[in-house]
Amino acid sequence: MKIKSFRPKQFNGPVKGTPAFSGNKILKLIPLGGVGDVTKNMYVYEYENDIVIIDCGVGFPDEGMLGIDLVIPDITYLKDKKHKIRGILITHAHDDHIGSLPYIWPQLGEVPIYSQKLTCGMIRAKFTEHRLPKDKIRVVGLKDKLQLGVFSASFYQVSHSIPDSTGIVLSTPVGTIIHQADFKMDWTPVNGQVTDVGSVARVGESGVVFMAIDCLRVEKQGYTLSEKTIENTFASVEKETEGKVLITMTSSNVTRIQQAINVCVKSGRRLALAGRSVENNFQVARDLGYLDVPPGLVIAQEEIKRFHDNKLMVLIAGSQGQPGSALSRAANSDHKFVTLRKKDSVVFSADPIPSTESAQSALIDTLTKLGCDVYYSAMLSDLHVSGHAAAEELKLMVNLAKPKYILPIGGTFRHMKSFSRMAQGMGYREDQVLMAQDGQVINIRRDNVKMEGFIPVSNVYVDGLGVGDVGSIVLRDRQVMSEEGVVVVIVPVEQQSGQVAGEPDIITRGFVFEQESEELIEKAKSIARNCLKGRGEAPIDWRYTRHQIEEQLEKFFYGETKRSPLILTTVVEV
Amino acid sequence: MKIKSFRPKQFNGPVKGTPAFSGNKILKLIPLGGVGDVTKNMYVYEYENDIVIIDCGVGFPDEGMLGIDLVIPDITYLKDKKHKIRGILITHAHDDHIGSLPYIWPQLGEVPIYSQKLTCGMIRAKFTEHRLPKDKIRVVGLKDKLQLGVFSASFYQVSHSIPDSTGIVLSTPVGTIIHQADFKMDWTPVNGQVTDVGSVARVGESGVVFMAIDCLRVEKQGYTLSEKTIENTFASVEKETEGKVLITMTSSNVTRIQQAINVCVKSGRRLALAGRSVENNFQVARDLGYLDVPPGLVIAQEEIKRFHDNKLMVLIAGSQGQPGSALSRAANSDHKFVTLRKKDSVVFSADPIPSTESAQSALIDTLTKLGCDVYYSAMLSDLHVSGHAAAEELKLMVNLAKPKYILPIGGTFRHMKSFSRMAQGMGYREDQVLMAQDGQVINIRRDNVKMEGFIPVSNVYVDGLGVGDVGSIVLRDRQVMSEEGVVVVIVPVEQQSGQVAGEPDIITRGFVFEQESEELIEKAKSIARNCLKGRGEAPIDWRYTRHQIEEQLEKFFYGETKRSPLILTTVVEV
Repeated sequence: MKIKSFRPKQFNGPVKGTPAFSGNKILKLIPLGGVGDVTKNMYVYEYENDIVIIDCGVGFPDEGMLGIDLVIPDITYLKDKKHKIRGILITHAHDDHIGSLPYIWPQLGEVPIYSQKLTCGMIRAKFTEHRLPKDKIRVVGLKDKLQLGVFSASFYQVSHSIPDSTGIVLSTPVGTIIHQADFKMDWTPVNGQVTDVGSVARVGESGVVFMAIDCLRVEKQGYTLSEKTIENTFASVEKETEGKVLITMTSSNVTRIQQAINVCVKSGRRLALAGRSVENNFQVARDLGYLDVPPGLVIAQEEIKRFHDNKLMVLIAGSQGQPGSALSRAANSDHKFVTLRKKDSVVFSADPIPSTESAQSALIDTLTKLGCDVYYSAMLSDLHVSGHAAAEELKLMVNLAKPKYILPIGGTFRHMKSFSRMAQGMGYREDQVLMAQDGQVINIRRDNVKMEGFIPVSNVYVDGLGVGDVGSIVLRDRQVMSEEGVVVVIVPVEQQSGQVAGEPDIITRGFVFEQESEELIEKAKSIARNCLKGRGEAPIDWRYTRHQIEEQLEKFFYGETKRSPLILTTVVEV
Repeated sequence: MKIKSFRPKQFNGPVKGTPAFSGNKILKLIPLGGVGDVTKNMYVYEYENDIVIIDCGVGFPDEGMLGIDLVIPDITYLKDKKHKIRGILITHAHDDHIGSLPYIWPQLGEVPIYSQKLTCGMIRAKFTEHRLPKDKIRVVGLKDKLQLGVFSASFYQVSHSIPDSTGIVLSTPVGTIIHQADFKMDWTPVNGQVTDVGSVARVGESGVVFMAIDCLRVEKQGYTLSEKTIENTFASVEKETEGKVLITMTSSNVTRIQQAINVCVKSGRRLALAGRSVENNFQVARDLGYLDVPPGLVIAQEEIKRFHDNKLMVLIAGSQGQPGSALSRAANSDHKFVTLRKKDSVVFSADPIPSTESAQSALIDTLTKLGCDVYYSAMLSDLHVSGHAAAEELKLMVNLAKPKYILPIGGTFRHMKSFSRMAQGMGYREDQVLMAQDGQVINIRRDNVKMEGFIPVSNVYVDGLGVGDVGSIVLRDRQVMSEEGVVVVIVPVEQQSGQVAGEPDIITRGFVFEQESEELIEKAKSIARNCLKGRGEAPIDWRYTRHQIEEQLEKFFYGETKRSPLILTTVVEV
């Protein structure tokens, strides 16, 4: 049986049986991101001369990554394997699955990117922004089967918090693999996109050797509520509001935007869009037919002042309380077009994520002080439902796919561990649930799957225009300066003779308020002066003296203030 | 009727009727902290020549307050009124109610501090640490009535997450006031300290003009569960654990510690204490008779290795994932006595607070990777109950006290607003619930209570040994450096002539990795050099040149990197 015959005519799962050449061959799976971590999804499936990549997302900086905008996967491993890459498959259009494409795709030899219509539209918008060519972004139908070297791939539909979310079936020489990123089971989704349990069941019946599956919400017992419950909440808030209705949510949540539109239409309000992410996503989704918007409903922001408040709804960006967002600016009376007034309502249709909880909370406070009626999940349920499967949904998916081995993805180690416990409760052995981490080499054979070795992966930071130029040393310095400030000691030295040529000077920032700490600084100068004493004639041993100055000042400052600023001693040649 | 006769013999609420001298007199209440904020509680009640202060707590720094250890109330208002202060009353021993005493009490003329036994014990421990005299810390019985100038004050018992929590009844010339800080209604508390609803009812019947009341958990519907539910959870975890049982919680939660002790005794394990806060609080509580511990149960940390793991329980500090805590060190194999092994259990009996959610989550991950069984609230309920009243309990308290006017305290503005909505649902008018903020002057008259004016209050920061020496400028510098780093430009200048005496030098930290950015730095040097050109002969106009260098470098760096580091230009005289 040759590889060419390994392509079934239509989607009905892979053909059973072992291709003759498979023997002891190994399919390698290497997660470059997304395992032991909630974001930054990127998975490399490699079989001899063929590589298929699934997803290419960004991660978000944690508190230690000061000043960092984004974290992207480390693709060092792929650098000498570009010729093997047959394509990048994208499961859905969230940033933690597509956000790194503008940074990484140009480095991978501009291979084709395959996904569904809306996902491709969102990627196109990103590529336009980054001035990248868009001819390799290809829409794939749900009935299509892609041949990518030895791999054949097809997409099936799942429910999630953005339309056109999918799972991927990979037929490989070692058997069938399912890659199931973010999903949930929503039997009454707003957009009609039900998780295609039938397809998964058919593939499962034909035998699945390995499945990667979203584990983020495994700790939540039971089932996730249907997205459809949200519209009633919007409608009842609208009814009670005498002023404007402002709704804020994750701006890629197209189906939830549709529900806001529905309420807008029924109540006779006009809709304005505020904030770049809301405007962009709305436009892409509407252009591609994912939003049903009556003509004339949407007004330009400039028109807001021409309508009565009770005839207005505003979809506004900034649901996590991001300081520069449209909602934040409006709350601080700093938005050009959106002015908040006493009888307005603001609806937060998004739960805070751990790192933004205090920002969102502060924003709610500011809005409350303005006299707005603020609706948020702590005071009103049914304002948000998760896009991720809870425990019973995960069990259903595993039961449909019946994989021999499972890799929980998109969660931290503790979520993976909970998933493992859950799977063991379903009859899996402990070794059948892989507790991998980023860079782990997972060897998939027809009969077994094992974690065997690592490739080194590190965080690649995006800071402003720089990609990868900020590393751990720079971050460590930022950390110290952020908490203790910096002290710069300057020693003038005569160029030719190497002799000390004047008094050492000391400046500080972020350490103490200098004008009120003159005494402290003067004492420090005299300590530095003492370290230089007796060196007037001889050339200075710079390395030794610097060490001495820094050591003594560190001790002095800590003793006086219990603070340890970053001390920078530098020589100036004159 | 004179003030002396205004003292009832035993606690049964204040005498009814208007003292003859009250007339149009006004009692001022000024919250210096604790209103519109969850922590930093401090309330000044002032009537003519008498001041009584309730609580003196610390606040915790938010993300913008880089490097700050604590925030304390601003007592500028009290500086010229020390002679009027009759005493400081403390409601309970949590740090946001007592933590500022070591910093503030010495500045207030060393007035008496009044509270219950455990609270006084905890304050004494703090004063010992700060080498302060302890003779003004006075234990007051629940039946005692204090005469403090025109005020008379008595304490009544409430349930909360630390024993000896109280509410305070202040009899004043304008009527009776109740100050009810943190509490809940727990009818089966572990330590028998039920909220004394009878006393509150009696005071309420006699007429209460004003009540300050905890509003933190008003958004939570229904009732808070009893603390007693926790012991069963500890017991069932203990039963399932083959190795050590580690329990971590807020270390002042004495009643929860008692429940851990009970499980320890029943299961035949020994108890070790790890972490300074756990050890200190345990000792104070035990010495004062608040813990029932069989002799021999507690072993020294050094002894841990002499017992089998299944004969050990460890109470360990660090429930919020604080990096330097005992639990964090143990998780990173860096604790001298506590070594974690595969079959050990770690129980987090404390919900994360917003600002520490990611730290706690990371610690849970590290512990899970070690192979420990970790129990935390997302995966198991009944691990923690709140110490604060939920909505129905608040309604009950208001119904008992029947105050004419209410000030919700200990919550953010949105909690105060929710409280106001709740109170309006009970029949209060909007103006009867005061939406005050820190520094607000609240004028309490016999017939009405009004917010009239402000005194200025600012945050006072504690950073290491410094109190108040770090202000907004230092914090702003830290903020910039934390995200963008620092660039120091050094220009050598000849002392006598004021002429430029050499090449400008540039050093950076936290900005770019210098060794890989030589070109960028060289270009920046040449920009600085150009700004100094043609000044070889003339003395330098330093102010102008510095501005020019900083402006041009800022533009240059932003253009090249989209980063805006803190630029520090300094002249060195040689």
